Formats: sequence, C-alpha cells, structure tokens
Amino acid sequence: MEFKRLSILGVGLLGGSIGLAVKKIASGGETVGYGHRTSTLESAIRLGAIDRSTTSAAEAVGGADLVVLCTPVGTFRSLLQEIAKSLRPGAIVTDVGSTKRSVVRFAEELLPGSVHFVGSHPMAGSEKRGVEFAKADLFNGALCIVTPTARTNPGALAKVENFWAELGMRTKRLSPDDHDRLICDVSHLPHAVAASLVAMQSDEALELAGKGFQDTTRVAAGDAGLWRDILKDNADSVRSSIARLRIQLDELEKRLDPKQAQALFDWLQAAADKRSRQ
Amino acid sequence: MEFKRLSILGVGLLGGSIGLAVKKIASGGETVGYGHRTSTLESAIRLGAIDRSTTSAAEAVGGADLVVLCTPVGTFRSLLQEIAKSLRPGAIVTDVGSTKRSVVRFAEELLPGSVHFVGSHPMAGSEKRGVEFAKADLFNGALCIVTPTARTNPGALAKVENFWAELGMRTKRLSPDDHDRLICDVSHLPHAVAASLVAMQSDEALELAGKGFQDTTRVAAGDAGLWRDILKDNADSVRSSIARLRIQLDELEKRLDPKQAQALFDWLQAAADKRSRQ
Repeated sequence: MEFKRLSILGVGLLGGSIGLAVKKIASGGETVGYGHRTSTLESAIRLGAIDRSTTSAAEAVGGADLVVLCTPVGTFRSLLQEIAKSLRPGAIVTDVGSTKRSVVRFAEELLPGSVHFVGSHPMAGSEKRGVEFAKADLFNGALCIVTPTARTNPGALAKVENFWAELGMRTKRLSPDDHDRLICDVSHLPHAVAASLVAMQSDEALELAGKGFQDTTRVAAGDAGLWRDILKDNADSVRSSIARLRIQLDELEKRLDPKQAQALFDWLQAAADKRSRQ
Repeated sequence: MEFKRLSILGVGLLGGSIGLAVKKIASGGETVGYGHRTSTLESAIRLGAIDRSTTSAAEAVGGADLVVLCTPVGTFRSLLQEIAKSLRPGAIVTDVGSTKRSVVRFAEELLPGSVHFVGSHPMAGSEKRGVEFAKADLFNGALCIVTPTARTNPGALAKVENFWAELGMRTKRLSPDDHDRLICDVSHLPHAVAASLVAMQSDEALELAGKGFQDTTRVAAGDAGLWRDILKDNADSVRSSIARLRIQLDELEKRLDPKQAQALFDWLQAAADKRSRQ
C-alpha cells in the first residue's frame, strides 16, 4: 500500500468497505473517517473500517496522503470547498461517485494546484446502504473507471489506479464525458426504468409479481437520496438514454402487429443473444 | 393425486417439472409425454419426468384424466384442434400458458362439451429452457393463477386447483381478462423493457455493465419464440402497459429539472418504499 495516511470522507457501504479492504492489505498506516453522524463513525471504528474519526472534513484530511470522497455525489462541491485549504501539498484526492463530469470540474476549480485529483468510479455496491453492510471484498473482481483529463497528474493517476488494483479491481480509463454517457446507459437508465416499472404498478398487479419482476426492479429499492443526486447531476445523459429507450419501445410496439411476428421474434432473439453474451 | 393418467403436451422446463413433481407425490399412475423432438422425449424419460412418450398429441391424450398443455402459447389453437376428438368424456384439460384469454376462448370453441377446460398459469420458470433444467420443486411455494369463466365446470376447477396445490403452489382465481391485464404489468412489460434496455446498448457501454444491469435485464435472455407468442397474444395489454410506463418516464424527466430535486427525491423514495415492501 503506497499510502500511509488515508482519509475516507463518508463511511457508508463504499467508504466502510474501502476501510476494511485497506486494513486487510496494509499495515502501519492510519485511516481517518469523516461523517456527520457520530453513531455511524462509532460503528465504523467498531467494525474496524477506520482507526479514528472526526465530524470535521477539514480535520479528517489534514496530513492525508490519499483522500477518498465517499459521500453522495450532491455533496462533493461543498466537501471539496471545505477540505481545499487543509490538504497537504502532494496529497491525492479521489472519489467513488457514480457521475464524473461534475466532480472533476469542481476539483479542478476548487483544489489548489499542489493537490492532485483523479476521478474514480468503483463499480461495486448494492441496493443496501450503511457501514453495517460494508465488506472487505466488496470491490474484488469489479471494475473501477478512472477519469483523467488533460490536467491530471500522470503520477497521481498511476497511484490511484494502483490503489484500486490493490483492492482487487480492474481499472479502465475513460474521459469524464464518456463515463457519464456510457454509465448512464448501463446504470442510471436501468435505475430510472426500474423505478418507473415499480411506480406504475397497482397493488392488484404487485400481488402477482414473481421472480422476473423482482430481478428487473431490484435496483429500484436503492437509496433515493443517492439516486436523486446521480440522476440530477447526469440529467442530460438520462434524457438522452430515455430517448433511446423510447425508440426501442417504439420498435417493439410496431412489431406487436400480427403481421410482424417474425420481426418481433428477430428483435427478441437479438436481445436474448446480446444478453446471453454478457 | 386425483388423476391416474396424466398427459403432458410439451416436455420442456415446465412440462418436465410437472412430470417430476407428479412422480414424487403419486404412485400407480402413468404420465405420457408428447413432443415433436424424439431426443427431448428420450431425455424426459431418462430423467424420469414421463413414463412413456409419443410424437402424436392425439395419441398422448387418449384415456388421460388430466391433460396439461405445456407448449408455447402460439401452438395452443392447433394443439386443441388436434386433441379435441381423442379426449375421453370427463377428461380435464389445463395449460401453463402466460396468457389466458386466447387459450380459454380456443378451448371453449374447440373442445367437446363432455371435456372440461380450466385455464392455469403456474408462475414458475426461469430464463432457462429445456427438460434438462426441469426440477420437481420448481413450483414449490409459487403462485398459480387459474382463470375460470361462467362456462367452467366447478368440479373440474376444484380438481385443477387441487392439482397445483399438490405441486406446492398457492392458487388464485382471476378472470382471463384480469389475468392478461395484470400479468402484463408485472411480467410481460418487464420482459419488453428488459429487452429494450439490452437492444439499445452499444458494445462500449455493455463492457461497463455491472450487477445492476445484469439483474434488470436477466429476463431478456429468455426464449425468443415463447416471448414472441406471449407478447403477440397479449398485444393490447402490452401497448397499454407501455403507455403507462411512458407516463412514469415523463414524470421522471420532468423531475430532472434542477428546481424539481425534492419532487425527484419523493418519486424515487416512493418507488424504493414500494419495491422494499415486495
């Protein structure tokens, strides 16, 4: 582990899991956790996810080699403002947010030139929330997207990639724009659609729901605050993804015509083949 | 087991599982399987799902107390025509189709008055297909909807309900109309949406897909022929369900406006609460 002093801002499912994973692979370092609920911070210490805690973000980052923003996407701007002056020169800041354009922009605007920011999106988690669900192997085998820009320090980028790799992740570089556009299609849109599928149901229909419905809508149980932030922050991509989904629904509806049975089969078969390759 | 002589028309995942379940609870009876592929029929005998087989549906139903149609929905009309004259007086016919209006109508048109039809939809299965995936406990704990009409024989209805109960299912009565409308919302629409979500993806985006996408689109890997039949047969319901889904997508899009953050949260929270109660 390259980083001796780690600061985790927000010790929920992701932040807590990072703490537990680091504890497993590193020795001699220290992990400081920040949060605004002391009960959460106490749980995080009890579970071994962090060594000590503070309810001041500025205090949490003092002297840190690596700071990981693990609070909801909507808090990143004010959090970066709060920590900007307390970061030591050479400190590296990254995050676990599900959108990347905004946090990269905020970091480039708000952090001093002596501090290096690298946007990250470790694609792990669940519809559960809270440090009680944190586990050291949450990231194992999953993908972490890092989103460097022309202004990203290459050394800091390599160190952040190495950090995620040490937690068991594969890493992939994408621009913040490409990240937000592509992740919208495979994550933000599925969430929006799952929530819409739930929202439209009558109690009468829900009583009949089976395993297919449960699978298709599982993500809709996720934390509303987190998802409000994500969908709001990535609103233009969400609109574009919904528009492209609507085109497929149009295609399907056209093929419901009795004369289009073969075309309906072909469309379903193509989707089944594509899904089976996943 | 009330029925001594059982005829399973179509020995795939569902038909095979019925055979295995019956074998487990009944003794002294005989199960005859019909299919058009001898290799499937041989597998079904080898796996113990049926006692003997034939590639003639008319032959398969001769002398049967209970006939269960387990072929795709789109084949029911011709299958009923094929067996109508070979059924013994007093025989009971049911099915496992995912749509109910059409099969009930075909049965009432095509079967002689001496034969009793009761529509059934045992809500079990998976995206897998084939008798190799059949298992005796597939139906255990699941819901079976039966769809009597004014013309349904009450004694036959009770016997069919009892048959599914013996296989471990809860049963519920719905009219064919209500069945097709409600099941569309919780099953046919989720399939249509999952397939649309897969169809719209670029390879670039699919490379980044995680567990949420996998869950949301799992059903899209299902058999295209089966689903073509279902969606085609229930086209009016599918159109109505899609229209109501589009209204929720409109709602969501409205709430992507930065000024609507609270309304977006409320909408997501309501969906999360509703889903969590499932």
